[in-house]
Amino acid sequence: MKSKEIRLNQRPHGMPTPEDFNVVEVDVPDPQDGEITVKNVSLTVDPYMRGRMVDRASYVAGFDLSETLTGGAIGKIVESQNSDFPVGEYVESHLGWREAWTGSSRGVRKLGNLEAPPSAYLGVLGMPGMTAYVGLLDVGALKEGETVFVSGAAGAVGSAVGQIAKIKGCKAIGSAGGKEKVRHLVEDLGFDHAFDYRDGHLERQILEGAPQRIDVYFDNVGGSHLQAALNCMNPNGRLPLCGAISQYNATEAVPGPNNLAIAIGSQLTLKGFIVSNYNHLREDFIRDMTSWVNSGQLKYRETVFDGIDEMPNAFIGLFTGANTGKMIINLDD
Amino acid sequence: MKSKEIRLNQRPHGMPTPEDFNVVEVDVPDPQDGEITVKNVSLTVDPYMRGRMVDRASYVAGFDLSETLTGGAIGKIVESQNSDFPVGEYVESHLGWREAWTGSSRGVRKLGNLEAPPSAYLGVLGMPGMTAYVGLLDVGALKEGETVFVSGAAGAVGSAVGQIAKIKGCKAIGSAGGKEKVRHLVEDLGFDHAFDYRDGHLERQILEGAPQRIDVYFDNVGGSHLQAALNCMNPNGRLPLCGAISQYNATEAVPGPNNLAIAIGSQLTLKGFIVSNYNHLREDFIRDMTSWVNSGQLKYRETVFDGIDEMPNAFIGLFTGANTGKMIINLDD
Repeated sequence: MKSKEIRLNQRPHGMPTPEDFNVVEVDVPDPQDGEITVKNVSLTVDPYMRGRMVDRASYVAGFDLSETLTGGAIGKIVESQNSDFPVGEYVESHLGWREAWTGSSRGVRKLGNLEAPPSAYLGVLGMPGMTAYVGLLDVGALKEGETVFVSGAAGAVGSAVGQIAKIKGCKAIGSAGGKEKVRHLVEDLGFDHAFDYRDGHLERQILEGAPQRIDVYFDNVGGSHLQAALNCMNPNGRLPLCGAISQYNATEAVPGPNNLAIAIGSQLTLKGFIVSNYNHLREDFIRDMTSWVNSGQLKYRETVFDGIDEMPNAFIGLFTGANTGKMIINLDD
Repeated sequence: MKSKEIRLNQRPHGMPTPEDFNVVEVDVPDPQDGEITVKNVSLTVDPYMRGRMVDRASYVAGFDLSETLTGGAIGKIVESQNSDFPVGEYVESHLGWREAWTGSSRGVRKLGNLEAPPSAYLGVLGMPGMTAYVGLLDVGALKEGETVFVSGAAGAVGSAVGQIAKIKGCKAIGSAGGKEKVRHLVEDLGFDHAFDYRDGHLERQILEGAPQRIDVYFDNVGGSHLQAALNCMNPNGRLPLCGAISQYNATEAVPGPNNLAIAIGSQLTLKGFIVSNYNHLREDFIRDMTSWVNSGQLKYRETVFDGIDEMPNAFIGLFTGANTGKMIINLDD
């Protein structure tokens, strides 16, 4: 069997371009004792991967130029020398950015009976969904009746944040790029208010939707969104810091919010978090989220690119606003 | 009886000047039923008062141009029509910036048997001491063996922060303005390392004293100190945001730290706080701090200006680094 895989041709400078990636074809060996061969069916690209493409320390190790990139993947076992991982099972692994692989079952998780299409395990039932869940409920310590503002609200994380807020009896405000995304948030997902950040006047637009001001700002964006949100917080507000996509492609240091001192008088808590350190909440997440998805209380959407060759474009699309909901690369044939 | 009192002549623009204040002399009436007359003996000026001199909302109401300023004061009851507040008692009130006053006992606290000179109740045993205590131990959630960096370390709050850290079995690093303050921190107060922030290279100077990096950064200063500290934090570090004295006299918005996104990957918590919301810890504070002061484990110093006429200069001196330890105005004759 052959597998096409994506490697870095060079480290991106600023906004990534297709020339930063190349596609190689490799042989997939037969499984040895204890090993499995997996054919991936859904791959994910996520904004955090941009940080791994630069040559500096981060909370996850950087990508090596000579190796195939890694990231979340859902695949199906097609050959097995491991009785715990039989042929036909769907598995989640970190061996994305490739069509197929052979290896040990270490770090591989069986999905069991699927509660949703496989790709959902890369989105609403996977890392982005759990990021929304722990970020809002644990880091953000959301209480019923509060008002939540989330940036990047039409993305995989943001769209779950707003809907979880609604499920918890809160008001949800979201920002996104473009009229269609704004419509989607309000009409399809039930946000109380949404606006197009490209229209500017962030602070005024937040307060139009939240005249009672904000208790939790879930930050996926950083930059001017964070500065505007700080000006709109209620006392004792919480700001889970999840991402700063506005800065990931910056080639120079970007000034921070010029109003951070507001945090003193208003007793605000800004708290950065990484979802992988919240595994103690994994069972709660799976139970709640599966139930919300199955009952239709929490909807999700995917933006799908077909075929491994399109994967760099899908990744670049994260930074140009090409996705509504989870960005997925479909390898089904 | 007459009382000289300080009022705002005009709202300061940028660094306050003596011309922003004026001294008026008023009559102090005799106490009516339930009232007391108090002769102040020690007055305090604190950086937070700068925020009350501008004409905008803050967490405490702004000063009115037509009224005498207010702030912490220790005084002695000289006349009384209130049997709960007999003549001769020392009391703490918020009726500072004046020599004497007559009024109700509401908001007035009897000091009882003095455990220290009266002025200490405006410093190490008062609001600044409690700010250090709750900010470091509760907001900062300090654990034994950790490393603490505090800016404005030679001030009333900062000098207590470093010494409490040492008492709790931690390493204490401090920054201050000038060689003598740096010497004082290390030789008199037992800081493990201190440096003069005016020498620049904040990040390098922090790491020289804390090669193992920082677990808690107690921020009195904001600005470049906060940015440098963010670059030196250990994962899961806490940053109690107590003050931003570097910005209090700014006439334009000052850019925030350009590296705030570090908080995501390192899971940092930045938490603003106001000491008045931590009254549930007041008994613990009084018990611990009194014991530490009396045993000599925690030392304090005062910078004393004599006479009410000098009070504006004492206040301005807070922003020029004129004080080591608590800035006090002594009204004893």
